[in-house]
Amino acid sequence: MAPRRKKIYEGKAKILYEGPEPGTLVQYFKDDATAFNAQKKATIEGKGVLNNRLSEYFMTGLANIGVPNHFIKRLNMREQLIRQVEIVPLEVIVRNFAAGSIAKRLGLEEGTPLPRPIVEYSYKNDELGDPLVPEEYIIAFGWANQQDLDDIVALALRVNDFLTGVFYGVGIKLIDFKIEIGRIWDGDFMRLIVADEISPDSCRLWDIKTGQKLDKDVFRRDLGSLTDAYTEVAKRLGVLPTNTQPIKPTLIN
Amino acid sequence: MAPRRKKIYEGKAKILYEGPEPGTLVQYFKDDATAFNAQKKATIEGKGVLNNRLSEYFMTGLANIGVPNHFIKRLNMREQLIRQVEIVPLEVIVRNFAAGSIAKRLGLEEGTPLPRPIVEYSYKNDELGDPLVPEEYIIAFGWANQQDLDDIVALALRVNDFLTGVFYGVGIKLIDFKIEIGRIWDGDFMRLIVADEISPDSCRLWDIKTGQKLDKDVFRRDLGSLTDAYTEVAKRLGVLPTNTQPIKPTLIN
Repeated sequence: MAPRRKKIYEGKAKILYEGPEPGTLVQYFKDDATAFNAQKKATIEGKGVLNNRLSEYFMTGLANIGVPNHFIKRLNMREQLIRQVEIVPLEVIVRNFAAGSIAKRLGLEEGTPLPRPIVEYSYKNDELGDPLVPEEYIIAFGWANQQDLDDIVALALRVNDFLTGVFYGVGIKLIDFKIEIGRIWDGDFMRLIVADEISPDSCRLWDIKTGQKLDKDVFRRDLGSLTDAYTEVAKRLGVLPTNTQPIKPTLIN
Repeated sequence: MAPRRKKIYEGKAKILYEGPEPGTLVQYFKDDATAFNAQKKATIEGKGVLNNRLSEYFMTGLANIGVPNHFIKRLNMREQLIRQVEIVPLEVIVRNFAAGSIAKRLGLEEGTPLPRPIVEYSYKNDELGDPLVPEEYIIAFGWANQQDLDDIVALALRVNDFLTGVFYGVGIKLIDFKIEIGRIWDGDFMRLIVADEISPDSCRLWDIKTGQKLDKDVFRRDLGSLTDAYTEVAKRLGVLPTNTQPIKPTLIN
């Protein structure tokens, strides 16, 4: 029987439980998929297992190049131990090619290369539909200050360089991605670290040759099996053996 | 008979004609009112006359405090001579209290004081509905550079200080306003100046005591006679004699 644990927070795709030590949490990856601010919902069998494994993979890679993040260790198929942070209420989005909201907002064709990587912010608020917000709003309302934003942009661009490289190596184009940022304290010192998750739920990934989508747009736009798409990503990255069932526990635990 | 003139540009509320000398234009104020990206349209008799006069009033006041702008002189009831500029394709919006799109975007009640004046930008593009854009987009797409934006913010905040004072003096709260910015050249030197217009079409103005709206929201939200509202503003500012018909040519020419 699973031990009784205190649930700290339940989001659309993950649950956070109290961790074994102060300053830690257990992050549980659900199979739930939502899109369009949860107007579209489904359960995608195995998604949580894949994302737990993929987020571990990316966060470990980032830690190796010195990009601080919340990941401590994977606990089991669906759970990982993470550092407890105070989440900055922003979705930090980095875009290399136009897709999704920027394509619509600026009338650009999806896939158009942007003049340079663009970092933008959405205010994390489901009721409001996570609206795009200028830095002005963020600073005026005190969600972060200018120094925080400078640090966040620097972090976000490093993550972009690294992830672009990782995906490039396996024939995938990183169109855009979203990260969240958390604050941790060491005495009076505050540091910003990458939090939440990095997975095909939070990236747009297109096959370089075919343009095939390998990310949550498969679900958003009904383009086929989301599990197949995520499994393909995991296989290419060597996170799963290439010729076996993706979500078989023994293979990924 | 009016002289033949070359029409340079026709917008929703104004027409620009070639001016008498190089580097000048004639700006003609129409009576057309539009809202919601021109989905709502009407002709408001006398609006153009009032706005021509009011924009002259504000631009002259700004020039007096050293805020450079395009206004040269009023020519007649509906026309003014202006400097030809290269318009920066942004609407520069300064907000003191929440109203309109920021109220909707952030779930704020209209009239809520903002923590400080907020400067934001919309990309001037009717097809796209003049979408809000972060500075990142502006710089990445080259619509303006960081130095331009710093200069634009400085200009916008000076305009805000001045206009807030002007309206405060006549019992009106300046909720927000929009300006446009143009580039002019002197040899290799580029300077940014205030362009377009400043009028109740481009400001939100609430009576301090009653909260009554005295701006284009009267039209957007069907709150009564727009001409009456604008006439009230003009009267309070002494731009029109207080006890006469507002749009009678002899009084305002």
